[in-house]
Amino acid sequence: MENIYKNIKEKNPLIHCITNYVTVNDLANILLALGASPIMADDKLEVEEITAIAQGLLINIGTLNERTVESMILAGKEANKRNIPIVFDPVGAGVSKFRQESTMKILEELKLTVIKANASEIKYIYNNQASKSGVDVDKVDELNEENIGSYINIAKELSNKYNCVIVITGPVDVLAYGERVYLLKNGVSLMSKVTGTGCMLGALVAGSIAANKDRLLEATLFALAIFTISGEKSEKIIKKKNLGIGSFRTSLIDNIYNLTHKDVKEEVNFEIC
Amino acid sequence: MENIYKNIKEKNPLIHCITNYVTVNDLANILLALGASPIMADDKLEVEEITAIAQGLLINIGTLNERTVESMILAGKEANKRNIPIVFDPVGAGVSKFRQESTMKILEELKLTVIKANASEIKYIYNNQASKSGVDVDKVDELNEENIGSYINIAKELSNKYNCVIVITGPVDVLAYGERVYLLKNGVSLMSKVTGTGCMLGALVAGSIAANKDRLLEATLFALAIFTISGEKSEKIIKKKNLGIGSFRTSLIDNIYNLTHKDVKEEVNFEIC
Amino acid sequence: MENIYKNIKEKNPLIHCITNYVTVNDLANILLALGASPIMADDKLEVEEITAIAQGLLINIGTLNERTVESMILAGKEANKRNIPIVFDPVGAGVSKFRQESTMKILEELKLTVIKANASEIKYIYNNQASKSGVDVDKVDELNEENIGSYINIAKELSNKYNCVIVITGPVDVLAYGERVYLLKNGVSLMSKVTGTGCMLGALVAGSIAANKDRLLEATLFALAIFTISGEKSEKIIKKKNLGIGSFRTSLIDNIYNLTHKDVKEEVNFEIC
Repeated sequence: MENIYKNIKEKNPLIHCITNYVTVNDLANILLALGASPIMADDKLEVEEITAIAQGLLINIGTLNERTVESMILAGKEANKRNIPIVFDPVGAGVSKFRQESTMKILEELKLTVIKANASEIKYIYNNQASKSGVDVDKVDELNEENIGSYINIAKELSNKYNCVIVITGPVDVLAYGERVYLLKNGVSLMSKVTGTGCMLGALVAGSIAANKDRLLEATLFALAIFTISGEKSEKIIKKKNLGIGSFRTSLIDNIYNLTHKDVKEEVNFEIC
Repeated sequence: MENIYKNIKEKNPLIHCITNYVTVNDLANILLALGASPIMADDKLEVEEITAIAQGLLINIGTLNERTVESMILAGKEANKRNIPIVFDPVGAGVSKFRQESTMKILEELKLTVIKANASEIKYIYNNQASKSGVDVDKVDELNEENIGSYINIAKELSNKYNCVIVITGPVDVLAYGERVYLLKNGVSLMSKVTGTGCMLGALVAGSIAANKDRLLEATLFALAIFTISGEKSEKIIKKKNLGIGSFRTSLIDNIYNLTHKDVKEEVNFEIC
Repeated sequence: MENIYKNIKEKNPLIHCITNYVTVNDLANILLALGASPIMADDKLEVEEITAIAQGLLINIGTLNERTVESMILAGKEANKRNIPIVFDPVGAGVSKFRQESTMKILEELKLTVIKANASEIKYIYNNQASKSGVDVDKVDELNEENIGSYINIAKELSNKYNCVIVITGPVDVLAYGERVYLLKNGVSLMSKVTGTGCMLGALVAGSIAANKDRLLEATLFALAIFTISGEKSEKIIKKKNLGIGSFRTSLIDNIYNLTHKDVKEEVNFEIC
């Protein structure tokens, strides 16, 4: 993974984010912490030009509206034309008709590079199963030891269908690119208790693949590894000092900023499936 | 208050927030810290569906626009149809015609459960007295020992008129539900020196009443108590370590996350009026 | 500078911010930390009224859209009518036609008080030279010892052309008001590694000049001084405690809150050119 990290630091890729207004500041700071640069722009009058100067595009539908969905499609088509990688984060994909239709529109009209979703969102994409749990994973969908086999199959199928990397986040993260599957076991449950961790992960994936277009699965794994290892380090600090999720959020960004390639290499816990 | 807190933690209510983009991240994190779940959505194409799966609705007009005011009304009507409680935070209610008209529209078209406002905002709602002080309370309106009697009467009158809980925030917080009135004396002045404390309080009230629909006044008092006690603890930390309002904001969320029912019970300082 | 700071603390100026949704929370908190008050409002139905009750207007085009550009012009004209100072932060001025046109529209239709920009943004304003570097300064434009003379000349020319204070940020900050030029040498490179430092500086300038309308250049210098000195103090803390940019952001706001006039006077490092 040494080269993957080195490429990010050296290329300092500019990531155009069309994202929600809840966690947008965290996305900007975590991209900077990684060694990438953020630019946020969502008006249809400029999104194509902004994508054209970027090395990666992140589409996150967390607080979508009619105006920004149009911009997402325009930016995505420009990215496809220029072979700029796209990460799609279908936040709450199944919870409303508008999110369902926007998700399908993005899947149909754009050639995506990575889809990063929780188990509920993936189920909507896989079989149009709607969720009532909001933007967090529904408890009935949560990935566990018993159902992981079925999620691996879903990930492979979707990867082949959309010809992209699929990430299903959970206590174990499933990554699939065609028949290649990685399972990542790092991470702590505190990460699901603070807002924006899913969004931040999407941004880190965008930063990592933008600098490593020829090694998409490894670059995606690297982003997940650095983020979950940062989560582990942050949880230790928070527990030791008796702090809470406010400090955890700050510490996550601090740790991404400070982690070295060596830390990631030593602490990553994944298996090839 | 033990059961009120227990209900929040057990029910983990989903709160649909249509709110401003200044403090939205703090709202999401403080709801998570309390044990509730946030979902932000403001497009008219989806707000009714989002409210329908939520257990509470928060309407905050801090950065309202024509598009989102329409969404607030749609979501509010859906909440009323389904008996989902609504907290209304009329940020800067009197400072522009648009805020004045939007505030009156919300008061007229929706059946609200709690209105939480500062003294200037309440004065606009009570007698259309406009304010020039922005979104913070005007010094001439500020609740103090001499005028508290008149604010108690205003709170009771408005509670009877709108058949909802009224909260007037200030050095002492006034809560009224019909003829029942509580005065809460916790809190520190530093809370007015950081942005979003009023908004965060609105979100905490929404989280608390959504899990305690049969005890609205007590649940509202609980939210105010946990927040102001968190403020007291945070101020101590900030002063001891010579930090400032950046750290105070983080510490507020940390303390909400860590406070137990026992802490609240021991430190709450209120009287029944 | 003692009186400049005293005026801010005593007058507690209300600053109307029409700004981007990435760093808006930081702007609100840093204005409060300085002793000013923020109000964010961007709908055309209310921006004129909000500006009319404010003592300063900040226009930041970081995430502009068609709707908000219209609001910026309306608010700016109201500010001009009432002699309320305007700070313009042309974020990414050259990176898209929409930003280029919006920047020129603001420059032509409004009488600005301060323009604060990085070297790439200034180059667009000066000679319509477009940038491909996003919202951060392009490496080829960066102000350094060799080219500082040409930036001083640009600043003076633009100051005379637009009859306003010009600030060009960089390792050395250039301030010009007509033929008067200050160079400020405080600051640390870590400030460019966290999102929103440029935006925060724009807000601080707005807060400072709103309370010191008769001493525009000195009030601008004061804002830059307090911010860069806060950056120096924060960097020391971050390095000592082995933290990262998440904590640096919080510490910047803490230090603005805690810095006294004496600190600024002792540590400011500027020359009159």
